[in-house]
Amino acid sequence: MSDPLITFLSDFGREDWFVGVVHGVIHEHFPRAKVIDLTHEIPPGHVAHAAFVLEAAAPDFPPGTIHLAVVDPGVGTDRRALAAAARGQHFVGPDNGLLEWALGDAARRVHEIRERRYLRSSVSPTFHGRDVFGPVAAHLAAGVRIEQLGPAVHDPERLPPCAPRREGSDLVGQVMFFDRFGNALTNLTWRVLESAFPGVPEGRFEVRVAGRTLRGLTRTYGHSAPGTLVALMGSSGRLEIAQVGGDAAARLGLGAGDAVRVTATEA
Amino acid sequence: MSDPLITFLSDFGREDWFVGVVHGVIHEHFPRAKVIDLTHEIPPGHVAHAAFVLEAAAPDFPPGTIHLAVVDPGVGTDRRALAAAARGQHFVGPDNGLLEWALGDAARRVHEIRERRYLRSSVSPTFHGRDVFGPVAAHLAAGVRIEQLGPAVHDPERLPPCAPRREGSDLVGQVMFFDRFGNALTNLTWRVLESAFPGVPEGRFEVRVAGRTLRGLTRTYGHSAPGTLVALMGSSGRLEIAQVGGDAAARLGLGAGDAVRVTATEA
Amino acid sequence: MSDPLITFLSDFGREDWFVGVVHGVIHEHFPRAKVIDLTHEIPPGHVAHAAFVLEAAAPDFPPGTIHLAVVDPGVGTDRRALAAAARGQHFVGPDNGLLEWALGDAARRVHEIRERRYLRSSVSPTFHGRDVFGPVAAHLAAGVRIEQLGPAVHDPERLPPCAPRREGSDLVGQVMFFDRFGNALTNLTWRVLESAFPGVPEGRFEVRVAGRTLRGLTRTYGHSAPGTLVALMGSSGRLEIAQVGGDAAARLGLGAGDAVRVTATEA
Repeated sequence: MSDPLITFLSDFGREDWFVGVVHGVIHEHFPRAKVIDLTHEIPPGHVAHAAFVLEAAAPDFPPGTIHLAVVDPGVGTDRRALAAAARGQHFVGPDNGLLEWALGDAARRVHEIRERRYLRSSVSPTFHGRDVFGPVAAHLAAGVRIEQLGPAVHDPERLPPCAPRREGSDLVGQVMFFDRFGNALTNLTWRVLESAFPGVPEGRFEVRVAGRTLRGLTRTYGHSAPGTLVALMGSSGRLEIAQVGGDAAARLGLGAGDAVRVTATEA
Repeated sequence: MSDPLITFLSDFGREDWFVGVVHGVIHEHFPRAKVIDLTHEIPPGHVAHAAFVLEAAAPDFPPGTIHLAVVDPGVGTDRRALAAAARGQHFVGPDNGLLEWALGDAARRVHEIRERRYLRSSVSPTFHGRDVFGPVAAHLAAGVRIEQLGPAVHDPERLPPCAPRREGSDLVGQVMFFDRFGNALTNLTWRVLESAFPGVPEGRFEVRVAGRTLRGLTRTYGHSAPGTLVALMGSSGRLEIAQVGGDAAARLGLGAGDAVRVTATEA
Repeated sequence: MSDPLITFLSDFGREDWFVGVVHGVIHEHFPRAKVIDLTHEIPPGHVAHAAFVLEAAAPDFPPGTIHLAVVDPGVGTDRRALAAAARGQHFVGPDNGLLEWALGDAARRVHEIRERRYLRSSVSPTFHGRDVFGPVAAHLAAGVRIEQLGPAVHDPERLPPCAPRREGSDLVGQVMFFDRFGNALTNLTWRVLESAFPGVPEGRFEVRVAGRTLRGLTRTYGHSAPGTLVALMGSSGRLEIAQVGGDAAARLGLGAGDAVRVTATEA
């Protein structure tokens, strides 16, 4: 069996040396490590933004993958450091809601990182990516189990719930994220839509956002003329609003949290 | 013999998780894979821009290298997915002109990617980097031959021709690309210049661009005083316009497609 | 024993293909190479900026690490190419002050890179990252010794000295660098502070910068209310000025070279 992958997500940016140093520490503790950068462009300190990225990306990685996530404005305070086993993968990061995707698994196991032998020899109060989380991710890849890291945690920090709600015959979700192409990703997953509108074909959905009404879900970007606004199920399995060949977020002046209302029209 | 390198070029940017997910998929299909990011900062959907980058970079990689290129505004439509063997390397990407460098090789072999066994188990209509091209690059690195992927393609999409032309004793090319330093790279390759001006020494070339006349080709940036505008043969073997210690593109107000006129003066 | 890590620092940016090509060349010369990108976002040609990054990052890497650094406005001129053994690691880069951190080690050994067999088969005058420094880093990782590269160098280029100075009972340093979070890093290392103020506890330090007086050193960012300006010892072992949850550099209008004055108050 091959070694598990380690993914690495942070708000460190790539202008400084922080990302490189964490890579170095991981390889120092586990020379065979394969580390994949998810992104390091999370806006500084935006935990919920990073939690969304982790939720969108993690399911695309194989079972056993170790997700190292460091967006950590509380570094060095008494916030705990966590390692979780959930959804068939491992997650390492601060106890501030960043690991929400893992914590939403009822069968999760969460442990506090306490055992000094799995940390860097000297632990600073300001850079736990280097001194705590990176080394622990390396040790997990080398076969250490999360139970060895410290005591079980039963009350991890959670993010405020953010599920779509029913309003009459409508399902009301919200914009969660804008990707590089200006597509607006929502919290309306395919599972939620199927359960709210069982058996409704794509053509009978109607999506209202920013005063616009989009009729039918399209299959992909390139099927409509450039400039067309479309709603579609994106590659991470959630409804997104896109402009063909353009930037829907800019075009509609969308912001995170804006309502996206879905209904099914008569056949 | 060591495994072939896989390079990866896209317009995905690094703010989102798309690049990381493709890395993950490649490693899932071929755990020993060595993936090198070329760039992911291609302006969204700019196929010709990406094709230029691939042409400039590919010759610097060893024979057998697999170039994975994904700038794919037509994803999910009926545009084909291609794998090509050309110039001693492999190329994987959409059939939209992106692989122009490979297609310019008269001895190329091009196949359509059709065999489901070489794709991800589920193929979305919007993310073929993850579901089609990434897995195929991994399989090629593992030893699959392009003939196994699907039928031969004899009419791949090409980019509009963009060769320099003779005008009397001048050779007229154009600006193709601006690099990070503000250097303007042209379509005037060393081979083209040598054939148009056989035996002419560097000192006798004259380059006219944006109303300026630059006399002689310089050997490198640091030989002239800061601020000097120079013409030189750049590291990818094509004529470039540079400003020593500065940004020639900004200084001259250059844009892609601007004419660059070369002539040889009397000895 | 595992292979040494290679770190890679440059001003190439990530929009173009230069970084990827250097990775390719390293793997071509040493297929097992493990290359870690430090950063490629050094402002073009800013040698001192890059030298600071190398100094801040290198101590976090294991002994034997090979640091490849390419910020090279003099490429192709007669500036020498260097390889140095210093501080238990190796350093490869141009002779322009970039390797100052290595050169500050009295026990350093420095050699000029001359032996053609360790270079790329063809050496361009404008891209020594690809043609000289990358191949040499790969050869060092494969076991070549710096003595094999060329003659010893006894007069490498140095950066102007930039040490803090005493002014009466004050120690006066300066702002060296702004990280992604807007923290201002200084040249006041913990070693310098300890030697200037032996035994003084954190609470009795006073830091004056940009007309502000910050009393006491704080332990980490999250211990004070958002918006608070704090002084602390950062993760690379030097005094930094930070704003909790914000951007101290913007808030104070700080620039590189601004004075940071430290004193100890009465017990």
